[in-house]
Amino acid sequence: MPNNRAVAYKEPGVVEVIDIDYPTFELKDGPGVNPENVGRKVPHSVILKTVTTNICGSDQHMVRGRTTAPKNLVLGHEITGEVVEVGPGVEFLKVGDIVSVPFNISCGRCRNCKEGKTGICLNVNPDRPGSAYGYVDMGGWVGGQAEYVMVPYADWNALKFPDRDQALEKILDLTMLSDIFPTGFHGAVTAGVTVGSTVYIAGAGPVGLAAAAGAQLLGAAVVIVGDLNDDRLAQARSFGCETVNVGAGSVEDQLEQILGVREVDAAVDAVGFEARGHGGGAQAEEAPATVLNSLMDVTAAGGAIGIPGLYVTGDPGAVDDAAKVGSLSLSLGTGWAKSLSFTTGQCPVMKYNRQLMMAILHDKVQIADAVNAKAIPLEDAPRGYAEFDAGAATKYVLDPHGFTSA
Amino acid sequence: MPNNRAVAYKEPGVVEVIDIDYPTFELKDGPGVNPENVGRKVPHSVILKTVTTNICGSDQHMVRGRTTAPKNLVLGHEITGEVVEVGPGVEFLKVGDIVSVPFNISCGRCRNCKEGKTGICLNVNPDRPGSAYGYVDMGGWVGGQAEYVMVPYADWNALKFPDRDQALEKILDLTMLSDIFPTGFHGAVTAGVTVGSTVYIAGAGPVGLAAAAGAQLLGAAVVIVGDLNDDRLAQARSFGCETVNVGAGSVEDQLEQILGVREVDAAVDAVGFEARGHGGGAQAEEAPATVLNSLMDVTAAGGAIGIPGLYVTGDPGAVDDAAKVGSLSLSLGTGWAKSLSFTTGQCPVMKYNRQLMMAILHDKVQIADAVNAKAIPLEDAPRGYAEFDAGAATKYVLDPHGFTSA
Amino acid sequence: MPNNRAVAYKEPGVVEVIDIDYPTFELKDGPGVNPENVGRKVPHSVILKTVTTNICGSDQHMVRGRTTAPKNLVLGHEITGEVVEVGPGVEFLKVGDIVSVPFNISCGRCRNCKEGKTGICLNVNPDRPGSAYGYVDMGGWVGGQAEYVMVPYADWNALKFPDRDQALEKILDLTMLSDIFPTGFHGAVTAGVTVGSTVYIAGAGPVGLAAAAGAQLLGAAVVIVGDLNDDRLAQARSFGCETVNVGAGSVEDQLEQILGVREVDAAVDAVGFEARGHGGGAQAEEAPATVLNSLMDVTAAGGAIGIPGLYVTGDPGAVDDAAKVGSLSLSLGTGWAKSLSFTTGQCPVMKYNRQLMMAILHDKVQIADAVNAKAIPLEDAPRGYAEFDAGAATKYVLDPHGFTSA
Amino acid sequence: MPNNRAVAYKEPGVVEVIDIDYPTFELKDGPGVNPENVGRKVPHSVILKTVTTNICGSDQHMVRGRTTAPKNLVLGHEITGEVVEVGPGVEFLKVGDIVSVPFNISCGRCRNCKEGKTGICLNVNPDRPGSAYGYVDMGGWVGGQAEYVMVPYADWNALKFPDRDQALEKILDLTMLSDIFPTGFHGAVTAGVTVGSTVYIAGAGPVGLAAAAGAQLLGAAVVIVGDLNDDRLAQARSFGCETVNVGAGSVEDQLEQILGVREVDAAVDAVGFEARGHGGGAQAEEAPATVLNSLMDVTAAGGAIGIPGLYVTGDPGAVDDAAKVGSLSLSLGTGWAKSLSFTTGQCPVMKYNRQLMMAILHDKVQIADAVNAKAIPLEDAPRGYAEFDAGAATKYVLDPHGFTSA
Repeated sequence: MPNNRAVAYKEPGVVEVIDIDYPTFELKDGPGVNPENVGRKVPHSVILKTVTTNICGSDQHMVRGRTTAPKNLVLGHEITGEVVEVGPGVEFLKVGDIVSVPFNISCGRCRNCKEGKTGICLNVNPDRPGSAYGYVDMGGWVGGQAEYVMVPYADWNALKFPDRDQALEKILDLTMLSDIFPTGFHGAVTAGVTVGSTVYIAGAGPVGLAAAAGAQLLGAAVVIVGDLNDDRLAQARSFGCETVNVGAGSVEDQLEQILGVREVDAAVDAVGFEARGHGGGAQAEEAPATVLNSLMDVTAAGGAIGIPGLYVTGDPGAVDDAAKVGSLSLSLGTGWAKSLSFTTGQCPVMKYNRQLMMAILHDKVQIADAVNAKAIPLEDAPRGYAEFDAGAATKYVLDPHGFTSA
Repeated sequence: MPNNRAVAYKEPGVVEVIDIDYPTFELKDGPGVNPENVGRKVPHSVILKTVTTNICGSDQHMVRGRTTAPKNLVLGHEITGEVVEVGPGVEFLKVGDIVSVPFNISCGRCRNCKEGKTGICLNVNPDRPGSAYGYVDMGGWVGGQAEYVMVPYADWNALKFPDRDQALEKILDLTMLSDIFPTGFHGAVTAGVTVGSTVYIAGAGPVGLAAAAGAQLLGAAVVIVGDLNDDRLAQARSFGCETVNVGAGSVEDQLEQILGVREVDAAVDAVGFEARGHGGGAQAEEAPATVLNSLMDVTAAGGAIGIPGLYVTGDPGAVDDAAKVGSLSLSLGTGWAKSLSFTTGQCPVMKYNRQLMMAILHDKVQIADAVNAKAIPLEDAPRGYAEFDAGAATKYVLDPHGFTSA
Repeated sequence: MPNNRAVAYKEPGVVEVIDIDYPTFELKDGPGVNPENVGRKVPHSVILKTVTTNICGSDQHMVRGRTTAPKNLVLGHEITGEVVEVGPGVEFLKVGDIVSVPFNISCGRCRNCKEGKTGICLNVNPDRPGSAYGYVDMGGWVGGQAEYVMVPYADWNALKFPDRDQALEKILDLTMLSDIFPTGFHGAVTAGVTVGSTVYIAGAGPVGLAAAAGAQLLGAAVVIVGDLNDDRLAQARSFGCETVNVGAGSVEDQLEQILGVREVDAAVDAVGFEARGHGGGAQAEEAPATVLNSLMDVTAAGGAIGIPGLYVTGDPGAVDDAAKVGSLSLSLGTGWAKSLSFTTGQCPVMKYNRQLMMAILHDKVQIADAVNAKAIPLEDAPRGYAEFDAGAATKYVLDPHGFTSA
Repeated sequence: MPNNRAVAYKEPGVVEVIDIDYPTFELKDGPGVNPENVGRKVPHSVILKTVTTNICGSDQHMVRGRTTAPKNLVLGHEITGEVVEVGPGVEFLKVGDIVSVPFNISCGRCRNCKEGKTGICLNVNPDRPGSAYGYVDMGGWVGGQAEYVMVPYADWNALKFPDRDQALEKILDLTMLSDIFPTGFHGAVTAGVTVGSTVYIAGAGPVGLAAAAGAQLLGAAVVIVGDLNDDRLAQARSFGCETVNVGAGSVEDQLEQILGVREVDAAVDAVGFEARGHGGGAQAEEAPATVLNSLMDVTAAGGAIGIPGLYVTGDPGAVDDAAKVGSLSLSLGTGWAKSLSFTTGQCPVMKYNRQLMMAILHDKVQIADAVNAKAIPLEDAPRGYAEFDAGAATKYVLDPHGFTSA
């Protein structure tokens, strides 16, 4: 059985690459595995040799110590891999297939899966609907920032690329299908972005940039991205977005300069609960309700706000007591007067990944360029985490086996 | 020119029936009329002899002194009437027609109207999108709790009943088409209620009861209504709803007794910003975020919450500073973890009133019974306001000309 | 291993109850089994002891000799059963569960299944997308008009009833969830039926009656059913439908008498390719385009036509050469001038069966009464087929084990 | 009062530029004016000085003598103009505004208009729902291929461009908003085109090319256009479409070469009833059902077919008796087996024109280039008609006042 090196959370601010067990068709006990999942048989699984696995902003929540993630939790939920073993219950995948894995783990058998709501599958996480690989309180499925990873309900979960060579050629784009591209796209879709829309996206991190690329693909007339980080704003401009530095004056004023009006048709919150206040530069204090309240201000009456940015039910490290229990002081009256609607939650990746794959394969979008994808060896993961946390305008892609340099 | 008696707001807690001018095809100055609307020509209007005009819970916000409504503001936005004069720009209505008037005033010419978003018309309220008759800060269109009222853009706004005699026979049902029936129905629709849904409706006032009737019409399997007021709960049970007394224990526990599970598919907030805390009986203190936080708890993952209940941008009479500026402390993390969505705002009545009229005319719904409609003379309006404010499980319908007793 | 009695097609006009093999977790060779499916391993299957299994109008197409169905093909795709064995790949069903089985067989793993299009699953029928139990050219899955039947991909396909006793008590309603209730409902949904609609349904056979009940559940204001068979029309009237005898004058004239106007908002074709011409009574000649052309006439501009009635690609027994190859002479210009839309195809049962189950369990619909369900022993199947073919206003439910009389 | 030169139909094959009356706020009698519309007062109208007015394929139906159009009918329903007079009932337009006029005339007051179905307005054409300028049997509204034209219900119908100079600069693009760009886009939308779709469009005339551009704007992965005319196919390739010459072998074979599979997700019929048979080159005989039958073959199961191409209720010049009464021999069984859906009818232009205007103004689409727009003087209209009829891969834009050369 091969070695299996993997990225593990050690303590706040520290990740390390460690040795873990090679996966089998059973979910064994380990850091963060829900007791009810220990020993779970998964004959419907495949084992993947990881082709690429990306560092995600939501991994950072754990690494920063903002969660109860246990020591040695293996990280990673953005997984693309080559099938190297198929379980006895797998029927439509075979060894050698290159597949993208939605970060949401779902069973393909429950009511929610049947309705396409794979982000809230009822059968994979004993604690509550919805799960993910390598994430605290999500059932304990082992993370994919590793050389090998097990993917359950594989016939349902895996998206097979039609051609191996073509897939490897575009791998830095296709690797974004496991999470951020669908997540950003979902933000744009649920914000009601359509042909001709004006769109404001709060946050120029990878999800915000993916939302911007997604909005362009949906035919938006103008896509405007706001952030405090100039490098990330420059990245947004690199593919045709307009930008707003939220530390440099009111968003409405800046929108008016761009659009001639102070509001947009649609808005996306690609920041979430770790928002910082406007006006204070990159060192601004956390102000968890800032982004949503600002979006209610800048969205025109009748508009919608897509909220792919994560909001948590509890945040021990929060700035105040309300935020510690996940409460936000929201100006709902403003939203109500404008008849706004709001969509929250994990993106159900499977709803979008096939169509976005088609857009990538036919050169309708350059998502790797949009998010500034950069492949690094698995062993360099600690550096990737550190640079990303420092605000690099880069999406780090771990490459455990050198596929991207091939 | 006939006399024109009308219900006017005098001071907190006091309404009176006063004499006002008979309407013309011009919006004249008066209490609450926006300066930009003074003198506005409205040749597209009709003048209605009011058949029925209902007292609404949102009128109470003004009467309780929770707004900046000026003295002598004529109240009333739930209007059904007989056309007695048509303006020179009216083409498809004629004298003698009986019509229902959506409480939202809309122009039928702007982008939002063309998109069916008549609750946020851009051309009728100089202050912001959206308007209504007889309401503070809504442009100053004179209220309809009067013997006669002017309805602008009448070819667009008025819904003509197909047969006069049939209309008068069912007038206590049809009068609900101007506001609460579509408003409640909109709550149910935006909560995603469909055939087979389980539904929880917070609030057993007229809008809540209308939402319940609407949910039944949409095919809901189980409709559960929650309130602190036992009379209103009894009213809900009278047409087949289950009920929850929110002062008598946890809502989840009571849902479990009814459904076998602790969550519903869909939820409606028919209360709004004047919510009272659970657990304290009818005298419980205001707790503006209570209802929405409770609905996030009881709505199953993947569900939606329709919010027809009014939330305001400022509430000088609120219990705390946050509420005074319209801020609510919401557990958004709970909603996010469940991938909930939220729809706020005025119901665009025109989107639903024709189909609900059909349901009434063909006996598919008994909305007057559901909300316990009671006709009283216009001169008795002060008594109606007082009884409604005291929690009567009654929807008061003012009848200035004795149409309902005919 | 138990005996297994089953209803088989013998020759045009003749069905017989014969002995067949008890099912296993493999699809064995037999009448009508596609060579590519012979020997297919199905560890994801359950074996059901049939509780009820209904005779369907589309079975009649085979029995009348209008297809290439081979001798001894076991019939039956409307199946409700008790799980008596679970395959090694089944995870969420257990022995003793009572389940409804969608007539469409689907894999729950392909693109179409992931999109909810279970009527055109890509993995179960080697000939083309879509499959069904006991049907010619549908892959060869053994029919369920039998004591025992195998259901593949059972975690995905089977709808488990929440309570065994409750299920058996309402079994004559619940048995309609396997096909005709969702099929009729799908017709209504795709016709755009909503609260307040006026609806015309062509055909008062079981699917037409189910479409009518479905339209009522969707809140239709008026549901009108047309047929040539007076018994079936009486059946439609028994639950509140209006009726039109299409042999007794123009449909438009009859609609006008009922509605005051000559057109409806929405129309459903519950007849299909074996339509008979209007005006000639029950013995009218076949006229395959009659129904659709008539529906284009009676549907108002902007309406939609749902077409659950079966149209085939080839019909050797058709009245003329065009119909033999499945061509119909359609007045498309009429439809185009009215901006009509049309939806065809098998109902994707899984899209609706859970919600319709909820409506049944909570007494919101009496579908067994609506279609006049009648349980008979399996051995009486030949009589059921004959009576149904003769036009009985009855839905025959085969009961191999006496569950319905318990 | 100014002169008013206009393009009139004289006899089959002949159009001439003639003098007609300058418009007033009344619909006067004239060629093709419905008697019920004669003398209709239209105070809600504006009079436009025509900026551009395009020759449309559906004008050709009249000019070829395929309709009952009377002599001297003034042609033209694709109108962009400058407001030079406003009627007394007009409130939101003013002299000098540049506006696009939807070819569908609609009242903005009827049920259908309120539902956004402006292609089937109930109040503008006494014969049936739906109307257009300058078209036989559409009520008699005078055509816009003229120096001046009257536009009724102008506040509702006209789309005002935000900036006059910007509008004139992009006028060859914006002129397509009155008909073909929304019409083609509607075809794509109703075919279900979305991000990542593969699309086949039958017909490379202006509507087909606009559908192709629309499909690209919607994010399609691959857009394939089929025609018999090589010049038009070259035009399609000029903006990134793949092409199929339907005279050069089976469409499925050619799709397979392009896509690797023989079917597409979505298909658009941009040809209509004057389709010619495949396989015979440009001189192929008419075969009105050819296109739709072919589209059913090439659309994958679960797909949809948008049908903006015109089908008529009667066609005296048709090749056979069935086609003369508008009947087509359609292989509906093929469509049914694949669960296809079909949307027909006039595009409701108002549903799309604002968003497509935004896309043009923000350079997201080059529709003038896509359809090869070419401005010619009004007096050259006969030449434009002749060249277009001969198959020129050109969209002719009449420019009565020299705006395009400014």
